[in-house]
Amino acid sequence: MPELRKNPITGEWVIISPKRNKRAFDFISKTKWKEVTECCLCEGHESETPPEVFSLRKKGTKPNTPGWWIRVVPNKYPALQIKGKPDVERMGIYTMMKGTGVHEIIIETPEHKEDLFSLGNKRIRQVIQVYRDRIVKLTQIPYIKYVLVFKNQGEEAGASLRHSHSQIIATPMVPKKVQKELRGAKRYYELDKRCIFCDIIAQELTLQKRVILENKMFLAFTPYASCSPYEICILSKEHGFIFQEITQDQLTYLTQILKDTIKTMNKTLCNPSYNYFLHLPPLKRDFLKYYHFHLGIIPRLTKLAGFEWGTGYYINPVSPEEAASKLRGKIFLPL
Amino acid sequence: MPELRKNPITGEWVIISPKRNKRAFDFISKTKWKEVTECCLCEGHESETPPEVFSLRKKGTKPNTPGWWIRVVPNKYPALQIKGKPDVERMGIYTMMKGTGVHEIIIETPEHKEDLFSLGNKRIRQVIQVYRDRIVKLTQIPYIKYVLVFKNQGEEAGASLRHSHSQIIATPMVPKKVQKELRGAKRYYELDKRCIFCDIIAQELTLQKRVILENKMFLAFTPYASCSPYEICILSKEHGFIFQEITQDQLTYLTQILKDTIKTMNKTLCNPSYNYFLHLPPLKRDFLKYYHFHLGIIPRLTKLAGFEWGTGYYINPVSPEEAASKLRGKIFLPL
Repeated sequence: MPELRKNPITGEWVIISPKRNKRAFDFISKTKWKEVTECCLCEGHESETPPEVFSLRKKGTKPNTPGWWIRVVPNKYPALQIKGKPDVERMGIYTMMKGTGVHEIIIETPEHKEDLFSLGNKRIRQVIQVYRDRIVKLTQIPYIKYVLVFKNQGEEAGASLRHSHSQIIATPMVPKKVQKELRGAKRYYELDKRCIFCDIIAQELTLQKRVILENKMFLAFTPYASCSPYEICILSKEHGFIFQEITQDQLTYLTQILKDTIKTMNKTLCNPSYNYFLHLPPLKRDFLKYYHFHLGIIPRLTKLAGFEWGTGYYINPVSPEEAASKLRGKIFLPL
Repeated sequence: MPELRKNPITGEWVIISPKRNKRAFDFISKTKWKEVTECCLCEGHESETPPEVFSLRKKGTKPNTPGWWIRVVPNKYPALQIKGKPDVERMGIYTMMKGTGVHEIIIETPEHKEDLFSLGNKRIRQVIQVYRDRIVKLTQIPYIKYVLVFKNQGEEAGASLRHSHSQIIATPMVPKKVQKELRGAKRYYELDKRCIFCDIIAQELTLQKRVILENKMFLAFTPYASCSPYEICILSKEHGFIFQEITQDQLTYLTQILKDTIKTMNKTLCNPSYNYFLHLPPLKRDFLKYYHFHLGIIPRLTKLAGFEWGTGYYINPVSPEEAASKLRGKIFLPL
């Protein structure tokens, strides 16, 4: 069973999940992707994963058999697991909780080598719709305080399998990064009832130095204080937008900007490894007056080194203005 | 000139240092170490670095010529630079400071392929002595609030050159990680006047589940809430120990435990890439009643992925107890 352990000095939580080192591709020396043509996420290998919890499949086909084009399964090597309550236990100065939570894999295609963003808009849209549906579903589990959707694309981004997939981890606490954003945004709001995200959108649209793409609902830009080179944020422009209640119209805009942003990033940086993650306000509470849905994209171009480990600060060797200008240069799509 | 930019939402600082992307080995696609036999850090290439600020060299040899065995030079591509005051500037909602600071390289050997920890104790000891001397020296510069010494060993640890070296970055603010440790330790101290580091030492020595090595002055162990597999902390056992005032005796103990710890790590994990960094209390203030000098070692075995970027939490797939047991198993040195 995974554990959440608290750092006795800083109070920060860490997930200790020893079962995960049984994964085939765990450590760097072993992480070089095997050049295989099929894997446990492929069509025809359904019995090699835990039973599916959701799928989009041809009428008449049975769960855990071929015929699907999107399939959601529990992670075979979960970082967190649903078993009992997340009770706090102490031993001397040390504190831990059982690693209660959910860890699922969203398999985005039955084909081993197919890339999500090479698929048609309809398929990408369905994947985003599945993100939404799983978030809504997992929110209902007791003890769950947050649901994070993320994607690791490529070896440098920590993906252990080549087969295109996203992941969902539902946690018994609101993640530190989201907490910090919420605290900062709240502080700003309390000052004079303004939303920091609305103000960022206004300043970026006026300056036009870091904007990459824009449509009616979303803005893609390189944040002013980006931690890493070519970091991109896709930010909801509409104050009060709720991802869990996304309309068909809004889904079209999100699909379009996500696809176009990934495509221009792939063109500019020659298909880099990347991570992305969705940040929405925590469940069951109303943070909407000062928080906006956003999606962070981190191309993995540099490695963290001793300075970052020792300080907690990042050194970014590419200014966000230069990054935006290069990314815009590769756009042959209508703004 | 590098810039420090403040994240308008979280308030966190980031170093934007565009000149650094002019380095030869910057991005991952280009970071594969060239198989060269000499480089700009080698003896005989002294003119290829900025003029040295310190060296240990044969009597009668001149600065910036051969004859040295340890050499300290300013970084050619500094993350921070000393130029003017770190004044804060604002533009709308955004805040920045000039990237004022110092960034130096400690070249640990004149030989291209020599490894610091294969050298004799005397040479390792001199390197640690140079760490101390540079910290004391850089502390005297106005605006400098902290001096971090760190080492990136191997490609996976972000080292851009194979030639063995450490780095020093002096910053105009106390690093976030050190601040968090100080805040936590202070909170613990205020509760009932106890030092959290002393209490960790006592509990680890009683349990003996995470201890790797120990001598009169220092303890090497895998921290209870380690963020990454086989993370190691070398902690000063003596309450009130001041690294800047280290005695010859204490230097012997630190050299011994650092060398033995790196050697057992190299044996257990087959010479992994790793980072280490020194944490001491900030300069010019007295935090000694609740803070201990320590050295953090991070073997780079896994890669950060979307979950870590999205949450700020780490998933560690190896329990610290298992790591300590494996590391102890490789020790053929007297405890």
